[in-house]
Amino acid sequence: ITLLFHCADCLSLSFGPAALIMSKGTVVLAYSGGLDTSCILAWLKEEGYDVITYLANIGQDEDFESARKKAETLGATKVFIEDLRAEFVQDFIWPAVQANAVYEDRYLLGTAIARPCIAQRQVEIARQEGAQFVSHGATGKGNDQIRFELTCYALYPEVQVIAPWRIPKFYNRFRGRTDLMEYAQKHGIPVPVTPRAPWSMDANLMHISYESGILENPKCHAPGDLYLMTKNPEDSPNARDLLEIEFKKGVPIKVTNMNEGKSVDSPLDIFSYLNEIGGKHGVGRIDIVENRFIGMKSRGIYETPGGTILLQAHLDIETFTMDKEVRKIKQGLGVKFSELVYNGFWYSPECDFVRQCIAKSQENVEGKVQLSVFKGQVYILGRESPKSLYNEELVSMDVQGDYDPCDASGFIRVNAVRLREHHRLQGFFNTKQ
Amino acid sequence: ITLLFHCADCLSLSFGPAALIMSKGTVVLAYSGGLDTSCILAWLKEEGYDVITYLANIGQDEDFESARKKAETLGATKVFIEDLRAEFVQDFIWPAVQANAVYEDRYLLGTAIARPCIAQRQVEIARQEGAQFVSHGATGKGNDQIRFELTCYALYPEVQVIAPWRIPKFYNRFRGRTDLMEYAQKHGIPVPVTPRAPWSMDANLMHISYESGILENPKCHAPGDLYLMTKNPEDSPNARDLLEIEFKKGVPIKVTNMNEGKSVDSPLDIFSYLNEIGGKHGVGRIDIVENRFIGMKSRGIYETPGGTILLQAHLDIETFTMDKEVRKIKQGLGVKFSELVYNGFWYSPECDFVRQCIAKSQENVEGKVQLSVFKGQVYILGRESPKSLYNEELVSMDVQGDYDPCDASGFIRVNAVRLREHHRLQGFFNTKQ
Amino acid sequence: ITLLFHCADCLSLSFGPAALIMSKGTVVLAYSGGLDTSCILAWLKEEGYDVITYLANIGQDEDFESARKKAETLGATKVFIEDLRAEFVQDFIWPAVQANAVYEDRYLLGTAIARPCIAQRQVEIARQEGAQFVSHGATGKGNDQIRFELTCYALYPEVQVIAPWRIPKFYNRFRGRTDLMEYAQKHGIPVPVTPRAPWSMDANLMHISYESGILENPKCHAPGDLYLMTKNPEDSPNARDLLEIEFKKGVPIKVTNMNEGKSVDSPLDIFSYLNEIGGKHGVGRIDIVENRFIGMKSRGIYETPGGTILLQAHLDIETFTMDKEVRKIKQGLGVKFSELVYNGFWYSPECDFVRQCIAKSQENVEGKVQLSVFKGQVYILGRESPKSLYNEELVSMDVQGDYDPCDASGFIRVNAVRLREHHRLQGFFNTKQ
Amino acid sequence: ITLLFHCADCLSLSFGPAALIMSKGTVVLAYSGGLDTSCILAWLKEEGYDVITYLANIGQDEDFESARKKAETLGATKVFIEDLRAEFVQDFIWPAVQANAVYEDRYLLGTAIARPCIAQRQVEIARQEGAQFVSHGATGKGNDQIRFELTCYALYPEVQVIAPWRIPKFYNRFRGRTDLMEYAQKHGIPVPVTPRAPWSMDANLMHISYESGILENPKCHAPGDLYLMTKNPEDSPNARDLLEIEFKKGVPIKVTNMNEGKSVDSPLDIFSYLNEIGGKHGVGRIDIVENRFIGMKSRGIYETPGGTILLQAHLDIETFTMDKEVRKIKQGLGVKFSELVYNGFWYSPECDFVRQCIAKSQENVEGKVQLSVFKGQVYILGRESPKSLYNEELVSMDVQGDYDPCDASGFIRVNAVRLREHHRLQGFFNTKQ
Repeated sequence: ITLLFHCADCLSLSFGPAALIMSKGTVVLAYSGGLDTSCILAWLKEEGYDVITYLANIGQDEDFESARKKAETLGATKVFIEDLRAEFVQDFIWPAVQANAVYEDRYLLGTAIARPCIAQRQVEIARQEGAQFVSHGATGKGNDQIRFELTCYALYPEVQVIAPWRIPKFYNRFRGRTDLMEYAQKHGIPVPVTPRAPWSMDANLMHISYESGILENPKCHAPGDLYLMTKNPEDSPNARDLLEIEFKKGVPIKVTNMNEGKSVDSPLDIFSYLNEIGGKHGVGRIDIVENRFIGMKSRGIYETPGGTILLQAHLDIETFTMDKEVRKIKQGLGVKFSELVYNGFWYSPECDFVRQCIAKSQENVEGKVQLSVFKGQVYILGRESPKSLYNEELVSMDVQGDYDPCDASGFIRVNAVRLREHHRLQGFFNTKQ
Repeated sequence: ITLLFHCADCLSLSFGPAALIMSKGTVVLAYSGGLDTSCILAWLKEEGYDVITYLANIGQDEDFESARKKAETLGATKVFIEDLRAEFVQDFIWPAVQANAVYEDRYLLGTAIARPCIAQRQVEIARQEGAQFVSHGATGKGNDQIRFELTCYALYPEVQVIAPWRIPKFYNRFRGRTDLMEYAQKHGIPVPVTPRAPWSMDANLMHISYESGILENPKCHAPGDLYLMTKNPEDSPNARDLLEIEFKKGVPIKVTNMNEGKSVDSPLDIFSYLNEIGGKHGVGRIDIVENRFIGMKSRGIYETPGGTILLQAHLDIETFTMDKEVRKIKQGLGVKFSELVYNGFWYSPECDFVRQCIAKSQENVEGKVQLSVFKGQVYILGRESPKSLYNEELVSMDVQGDYDPCDASGFIRVNAVRLREHHRLQGFFNTKQ
Repeated sequence: ITLLFHCADCLSLSFGPAALIMSKGTVVLAYSGGLDTSCILAWLKEEGYDVITYLANIGQDEDFESARKKAETLGATKVFIEDLRAEFVQDFIWPAVQANAVYEDRYLLGTAIARPCIAQRQVEIARQEGAQFVSHGATGKGNDQIRFELTCYALYPEVQVIAPWRIPKFYNRFRGRTDLMEYAQKHGIPVPVTPRAPWSMDANLMHISYESGILENPKCHAPGDLYLMTKNPEDSPNARDLLEIEFKKGVPIKVTNMNEGKSVDSPLDIFSYLNEIGGKHGVGRIDIVENRFIGMKSRGIYETPGGTILLQAHLDIETFTMDKEVRKIKQGLGVKFSELVYNGFWYSPECDFVRQCIAKSQENVEGKVQLSVFKGQVYILGRESPKSLYNEELVSMDVQGDYDPCDASGFIRVNAVRLREHHRLQGFFNTKQ
Repeated sequence: ITLLFHCADCLSLSFGPAALIMSKGTVVLAYSGGLDTSCILAWLKEEGYDVITYLANIGQDEDFESARKKAETLGATKVFIEDLRAEFVQDFIWPAVQANAVYEDRYLLGTAIARPCIAQRQVEIARQEGAQFVSHGATGKGNDQIRFELTCYALYPEVQVIAPWRIPKFYNRFRGRTDLMEYAQKHGIPVPVTPRAPWSMDANLMHISYESGILENPKCHAPGDLYLMTKNPEDSPNARDLLEIEFKKGVPIKVTNMNEGKSVDSPLDIFSYLNEIGGKHGVGRIDIVENRFIGMKSRGIYETPGGTILLQAHLDIETFTMDKEVRKIKQGLGVKFSELVYNGFWYSPECDFVRQCIAKSQENVEGKVQLSVFKGQVYILGRESPKSLYNEELVSMDVQGDYDPCDASGFIRVNAVRLREHHRLQGFFNTKQ
């Protein structure tokens, strides 16, 4: 058992016909319904495992029922299809909004945030079904394998992970798409009929990411028809939408379209509506080179319509209601949070700690932000809050308020003490030299 | 003399007719040619000072010759008009580009960066002309007084600052614009004929800022005709411009318009051209509430067309050529740099230190970024560099490169050691409780 | 009223005989019983104020009853003497222990922590007594004026501070100790008979600080008889004391002397006992140059016996029970906390925020630390905890535990991906150049 | 070859008699002369490798000639014994002194700093001798394997590492010391005759570390006879030594014993002499639980006599000569540096960057520190410097200097703006609730 435990990757070496007789145990496989994970399903069975498939609905465009049937046909002992959308918004996207989570100054973490959401339910199922194994179709070079597995180990420390794309027996057999297609045909797996895009994508409620294939050349411009979630700003409406977003404790509680008067107020409705508006106006497209946790640079293209609107709106209401110095400390925690989430440490003591600190900072972050959305941009227009720390009279150029301009002289002169000393000594040093 | 030194602000108490007989000394006044500083000029003379006016050309739209004549007419003993534009770009904007300088996640520091540039020349003139005093028209509630004066004290520690808007004798006399107008008429100061905008603005090569007046109500939307440097995206061209920006050591050395083939390569030309393109497409408008150094929140509207393009392009080429962990450390230094510059500490040992560290980090930041500018947005499209740390083969999904996917298993499992321990003990604690 | 408000410092200019007729209002004066604040008391009365004296017992060696009598004799309208020792330990020292609070790597903040404790009660009294003014005897160059006043303004924003050592009328009158002595004799203030030490000191339960006088020469060694709270290690016992300190939520709840079996368990008793033991063995003496908030460097000598023992013990139990990455984040917060406290921002939104975050991090910091105290040193000897994250089996060199050494290979190789890339390109660059 | 490359760890599976015929290549083995690495030497030969042994003299107490003979006897094809002591001090310890390098607030990194020093020479030899392999005797749970190998990969990216204690074939054969002893006897390896201490130790010029064995129980006190480098303070001299250490650019350039007048001035002599004095007085003993890079907590006992003296002295002269705000930024870089070094990233772009930034900060860190060493403690007594930023007149309580106390009022009031606002709104919120 120790051996099994230690070398899940290498175990395949001992897989053989004999293994077919007795199950090696039960695997909960994160199943997408696509070619790769269908092949993995078949292969795991071939290798002697009982396979439970698990497909999370986190807002991707998917025919869940057809995926269920496919899994059943391919011999899954059980099929779980879980609608995690509301949970995804509330427990994962909202904390990211509070944190102004952005990785390396640009990436809004749409994939990174989804992974722990998916995986936490996967290990819940594994525990509940008594499965000792979990499996996924993530590759060996990416971030997602880490995000999945760290979540699994954190929440189910005894679990064993089978990551076929890191098992030589598997990846040497499936060296390219052709091998998968052949295997699929042999094992009755429906083969995709539409030609595949020359890149890979990952979609959820928060964003779609595009990478690999022709995008691997960092110089190559992304084709215009790549984007699925946002309109090309060149073709987007010539009239802006005017929104009012209301926040409480740093998360949106209501969005109103000031043009139409329409408003929504549940987390899922809010986020979906912001996606709709952002998508319609082409908001949230970025093309970046980023640093993966494993130390490679990769090129990714992302579209995050609703998330981009929320980031701007939250930054605005936060600065309006949060003390300057608290903001500075919190900004640092937000950078840390983003890095932790990117690297897969959502379920870690430190991410938990940071989330709690950030949540603490959001207690007074409430109020309404008005903004317009137009041709790929979000324009903040105004804000109001019962907890505003903005004091119109104090800051006014026209009235003095409770402030004595003379104080500024002393403030500046004391701030200059150090600078004047430094200069004096600089001069002294220079003279001496 | 000690008294004089200590209480420049209160000295005015002793100003009187007798003072007219002998000069109290020479003041170098930062003169804009506008109503305020013209009144200050006249008032300083009235108080018994010889006044040298100094007007820096840092790219604002100004009739410098008419300002010179006005100053001479009002009795300035000397008039300095200095073209600092090239210096401003190279010595002030470029370091900000290297730092990805952004204050409170949004403000690109256009005013903050200009102040030390203006003030360093002001004290240079003061030293050269043997003036013991410098003066400016900044108000007592703002950041600019600090930025001006810290620069003055840092570079000319013995200087005495006369800040009329903090001197009761002055500000009690000039309680509003009407008082200034009356004084102007009495002293032969040309009075502006066009009605003033109901806000104040500050312009330079990098940006225009708008604040106060009707903008002091944070809920009030900015009127559409406020912006002078950027086109309204609703009216901007329906065709994008495609640019290629080439960087070396983290600063742009060439910009080429791929549509027209035009290219520019001196710092001033580069920045001016990016302003032109950015302005034409409505790039770089923000409306924020920010935290002033003195602890007030204020509302500011900024347009920074060229700076916004450069920020995006620099972020891209930097991540492409800089090691991940260096980037993380440098990101923190950039946040520090931005705060220091915002608060007026450009000429401080710490800002100098941070600038040198950041410059060090930029040695390999070189290459070309292609991007399009359209309807208020900058879209990064691709990049290439002789110093790229991006390894297409290593990261490829299709080839293995010099990377063993099996290593990832160990990497993940070791990263999980701590998480599994934590969970084990959590469970243990929970059981016991 | 506005005028009064703005220029408390300059107001003295208008003080005159007429002022004697009607009280200018009531001042709560932080009164030490010493020469300086006795003169201030008399002077404030002379200037037309009603004076309430307030003397906090925070553990300094003082004859409180004699101070009361002195104040009454000098005409205080009321005298408050408040025993804040228990509050000081629990609400001020304990959070510092949780934070491992150390300023500039060495100073344990004994004075800085006491100031907000004293001042918060002072403004409480001012509010309760309807006093519009508070006053103190801190000098104009130090940190304490800031710590006092920021606390006052934070908790009683409308209060007006009278800081005589910053009022020209006062400090020009009292240019040296001789002036104070003369004034004292004239006003019936008892004059100290014992010669004063050629330095100043400030004592409380946490520490004694020594500065100024002959200590202003940074090269000058402190005389051996300066220290009052700790024995000279040369004369301290030749046998160590062995202590066991038990922590819960990051604060000590019990101290046991393992030699004698004696144990104490209330906050005040614990801290006093650690002072006794630390003092007996000469623990916690430092001689440093530090950076004041106002930008000057000053030389200070401190002795913090109990605090030094607690810092070492807390560091030990904290690392034993806190996750590594949480620790790293919390360490940064502790540095921030220390800086805030040093600068006088105990009562600020950011310090409050940081304290809450740190408190959060301490929830599992519990267990027992054994240590010995001997000749100026604290030696940690061992620790145990029900919430330990130390796993003896996991880390053992002799048993494998739940850890596969093979995993380390992958861990290292993935960590090396970036380094190898960097080297490859370095070589490439070098070749090309 | 790819296969070889990928699975150095597992390769042993294919090792067999046939392998004896042809060499598998050349290994440079980090050889200590002890039982473990002698067995590894023999085993590597048995496995078919040519073995070059390499033993670095970094100041440990070792019979290098006897080690050379042992290696030759055991069949090493070449034996390198390299005196790296001067290099170790100058290129590794000095940067750590500049950084005030301390890991987790207590550990001075004596082992961590030595590893890259040893390994960089090892790969230099490997390159020079055309060896494709390097090997070491570090265990699979520790930090040292990482420090060794990251250095190897960083400087020689194509190298293959053979880490026997992570190869199942090896560690399953040698399950305990008995197995090693038996193997030694069979292969003519001299077996240690003196009984082994019930812990392991690692010594170099900077420190000795002790861990494992009976020390794995974190509650167990270390036995008194464990320490080899420092005297027990109970038995140390009853008279202090008085030293003066002179720094330039942040590193010591001269140490003078003020009692005896003796002085030393080369890096190696300085550090050795400080070790001698520190050792004589029992300075630098700590007993800690620390967090390893791989996420385990371990217990370590360290004695770092000279390093502890230097840390205190450098902290002193640094604060004396470095601007306050530069210091704060540099302090953060020092924490980062310490973490990087602990984790094995000495040769990484980020550590290189941080080292250069820190070196930059040290340009004016020069002057003399006087201190005494006594009974385990270092007492700073005084300091002087031609580049001091300490201004005795400015800070003096007795003279005013170039400082107006009135300025402090404005400074404090402006710092209070934010606090007063916060309070006002707090009250407002509370009233409304």
